[in-house]
Amino acid sequence: MCSPLLQEPAPMSENAALPQPLHDALLQLLGPAGLLTAASDVDPFCIDWRALYHGKCAAVLRPANTEECAKAVALCNQHNVPMVPQGGNTSMVGGATPDNTGKAVVISTTRMTRIHDIDHADLTMTVEAGVTLKAAQDAAAKEGLLLPLSISSEGSADIGGILATNAGGNNTVRYGNARELALGLEAVLPDGNVLNLMRKLRKDNTGYALRQLLVGSEGTLGIITQAIIQLQPAPRSRETALCAVADAKGALDLFAAFRKQDPSAIQAFEFMSGTSMALVNKLIEGAPLPLSEPAPAYALVELGSPRGDDSLRSLMEDVLGTALEDGLVTDAVLAESEAQRQSLWMIREEHAEAQKRAGASVKNDVSVPLAAIPTFIDEATKACEALIPGIRVAPFGHIGDGNIHFNLVQPEGADPKAFLAQDHAMMDTVAAIVRKLGGSFSAEHGVGQLKTYMMPEWRGGAELETMRRIKNALDPKNLMNPGKIFPAA
Amino acid sequence: MCSPLLQEPAPMSENAALPQPLHDALLQLLGPAGLLTAASDVDPFCIDWRALYHGKCAAVLRPANTEECAKAVALCNQHNVPMVPQGGNTSMVGGATPDNTGKAVVISTTRMTRIHDIDHADLTMTVEAGVTLKAAQDAAAKEGLLLPLSISSEGSADIGGILATNAGGNNTVRYGNARELALGLEAVLPDGNVLNLMRKLRKDNTGYALRQLLVGSEGTLGIITQAIIQLQPAPRSRETALCAVADAKGALDLFAAFRKQDPSAIQAFEFMSGTSMALVNKLIEGAPLPLSEPAPAYALVELGSPRGDDSLRSLMEDVLGTALEDGLVTDAVLAESEAQRQSLWMIREEHAEAQKRAGASVKNDVSVPLAAIPTFIDEATKACEALIPGIRVAPFGHIGDGNIHFNLVQPEGADPKAFLAQDHAMMDTVAAIVRKLGGSFSAEHGVGQLKTYMMPEWRGGAELETMRRIKNALDPKNLMNPGKIFPAA
Repeated sequence: MCSPLLQEPAPMSENAALPQPLHDALLQLLGPAGLLTAASDVDPFCIDWRALYHGKCAAVLRPANTEECAKAVALCNQHNVPMVPQGGNTSMVGGATPDNTGKAVVISTTRMTRIHDIDHADLTMTVEAGVTLKAAQDAAAKEGLLLPLSISSEGSADIGGILATNAGGNNTVRYGNARELALGLEAVLPDGNVLNLMRKLRKDNTGYALRQLLVGSEGTLGIITQAIIQLQPAPRSRETALCAVADAKGALDLFAAFRKQDPSAIQAFEFMSGTSMALVNKLIEGAPLPLSEPAPAYALVELGSPRGDDSLRSLMEDVLGTALEDGLVTDAVLAESEAQRQSLWMIREEHAEAQKRAGASVKNDVSVPLAAIPTFIDEATKACEALIPGIRVAPFGHIGDGNIHFNLVQPEGADPKAFLAQDHAMMDTVAAIVRKLGGSFSAEHGVGQLKTYMMPEWRGGAELETMRRIKNALDPKNLMNPGKIFPAA
Repeated sequence: MCSPLLQEPAPMSENAALPQPLHDALLQLLGPAGLLTAASDVDPFCIDWRALYHGKCAAVLRPANTEECAKAVALCNQHNVPMVPQGGNTSMVGGATPDNTGKAVVISTTRMTRIHDIDHADLTMTVEAGVTLKAAQDAAAKEGLLLPLSISSEGSADIGGILATNAGGNNTVRYGNARELALGLEAVLPDGNVLNLMRKLRKDNTGYALRQLLVGSEGTLGIITQAIIQLQPAPRSRETALCAVADAKGALDLFAAFRKQDPSAIQAFEFMSGTSMALVNKLIEGAPLPLSEPAPAYALVELGSPRGDDSLRSLMEDVLGTALEDGLVTDAVLAESEAQRQSLWMIREEHAEAQKRAGASVKNDVSVPLAAIPTFIDEATKACEALIPGIRVAPFGHIGDGNIHFNLVQPEGADPKAFLAQDHAMMDTVAAIVRKLGGSFSAEHGVGQLKTYMMPEWRGGAELETMRRIKNALDPKNLMNPGKIFPAA
């Protein structure tokens, strides 16, 4: 099992050309703007943004609408050409990158960018797959509504991609993952038929949950082309606080205290270890610690409500007041303006960048039951420190969802390459503890091609077999995003 | 296409006996308490509670746990014996009743009644399939928590059944359908393998959404044996009001006004037509209209919050105050005590009973987009009145979910049989309008065997074909709940 973070780019073969009849049919269907074949045009579509994978493809297809997409898929299927759906190309796990045989085509949704409708009665947005999450958020905000999904890649990630990967992010604790936001869906199946599930219904018990199945299938069952997204009234009041706590258990107890009062008021609840915070304060300009002294751990709490009254402020003050009295929180700062709120969030959002500046690092996007978080962080920290003396264990993440980015930063002054050479040992060490505690090896990022090798051990037996049967039933030629989710048989 | 509500019981053949080797193996596996074969023992399992379907079965299997269930399913599969999973036997659509060949066995979950765990950190309950919804609700309440699903059959319906049918009910508007509450799941697949998805994770992107697929599959893909249910903090404050409005649009506008303030405060939002309310006031003892005069329509609003403060009361008063000023609400009564609250809910819950006392009636459990509700009710009312002069169109239901029980009561003094003879004409009349408006022919009740004939027209093409492929992939011998969801090929 090779270490994926150290893979060298595979030697490039030439792109295999499309069969001429397929090429001609696609050109006629999609026009020159919809069919890219020159190496300089297609290369950017063949490298994931982390640059872990360097693939090749025979062409990039850019259908302008569902009908073109469906016809293009049917043609590729007839010619047995593998297809790799791609949205904003922001996968963390190589989920949208073709292999290096050059036989596949990439089918890009980037030209399908229409927002058809914002419905104020149903609070929905009907949108094509290629609209970026940011553009969709902005369109909702313009109408006084909230599209309640926020991830760091939202400027590039598109609606098709966030649904195909069931994206999570900062507001999952309040509104759920992307799957919960998709009220309707349209997808082109591997044979080119269109699955039209574009219904605006909150209750509809008429057969299998195909919409939920397509969401999170990482492009292996079809290409999502349109969706109806459930919106929310925009929050009119927000309260944001950064709190110093003793450890993860302290952060979790604070979360429970807020949840007991009103789970639906918790817009976000983030955890940051002292180690990771210290890196931010030291290495990021304009991000000093806004508390009087460093603490072992921190929680960033954001409450939100569409209500215009001041009940949120009293909720925040009541819970924090009790927590300060009880010693659960040792210090706290409340944002008194939008500028202060943004600077608290900036501190949270710079953790990945600060870790990058601190040297080589290894990411573990894991989840465990909430009750297991303290044990997980304790045991995994000790195990990693035993494995690599001087390692900087710098976890942070969406603790309200049980989702910790258990990131590991190289010892100060150590050789980055030597550190990364042990990446697999570190990942396996963390994974073993996650597994023992009933957690998952991928909370948000999906399986893609990076983590397929973990599937047999973690999801083997009846679970993986059931997934394989479904895949085979809907894509018997294995043409739709092959090599993703499933390990080679 | 025969009229299902007028079906006579089919002539009963004798129960086909189990093959002797299978009988002996099942007896050894399940013991005498787990294997019923006497006609008097199995008959109650062969009639649905609406008594629409009178089936037969070779035996009733009552496994005591997952392991017994899995082994029993494997044995039945080896002997090609069809299996009909059954929970509390409260299906509205004959979903848990065997056909009348007598070849199938019913597999009942009623002996699997353990509540394993209530977890206060994760707010979850780990529970076996045979626990009734009411028992599970009570166990949660005892711990100060809320199991946020409430349906009228909750005293009999069990956890396995509500998940297999993706039950809805009064609180869906706030907490979602049963699917959204199942954090973890265990099911026995048609081949007897156990699919263990019992994970307490809010984020877990590691392959296909098998849990969501199993939920709502009406026992055709496997038997749900255990689940982890997401609980909520119990509401500490509640405000309940009955409001007189001009029509469905008025009710919907009132819903929008509350939603704009705080969607998460709306615990329930129910609609009642004036016609249906008048039947309740007239035919149900102790349920007079608690307003000064009858109105064309009513909304029952319940706000709830785990917060102990009085912000809910002011929210209710603010919205209702404005609505009264604007003439949107013409009269309203607020519950000032738990007894008053219960009597308002009693009025809502007696609609089905009042309609029953008024004579023959036809039920349409439909949903449409919220924006389409006024048009739906207008058009469907006119069409039914044109079809049967004097008919009493008496809709009510979960308007906040777009789910209307569009029920039709016979003209006063008319012959019930003559009225019911036109049931299909009425259902088709309503269905055509629902369809035109992008709605669904089954919001909560599922397809079962009652509505299989509607699937090709409503869900045909790629959607039904995709469902068939999945069914065939997981149950190639078509042994698990045959005849449900899918029309005969």
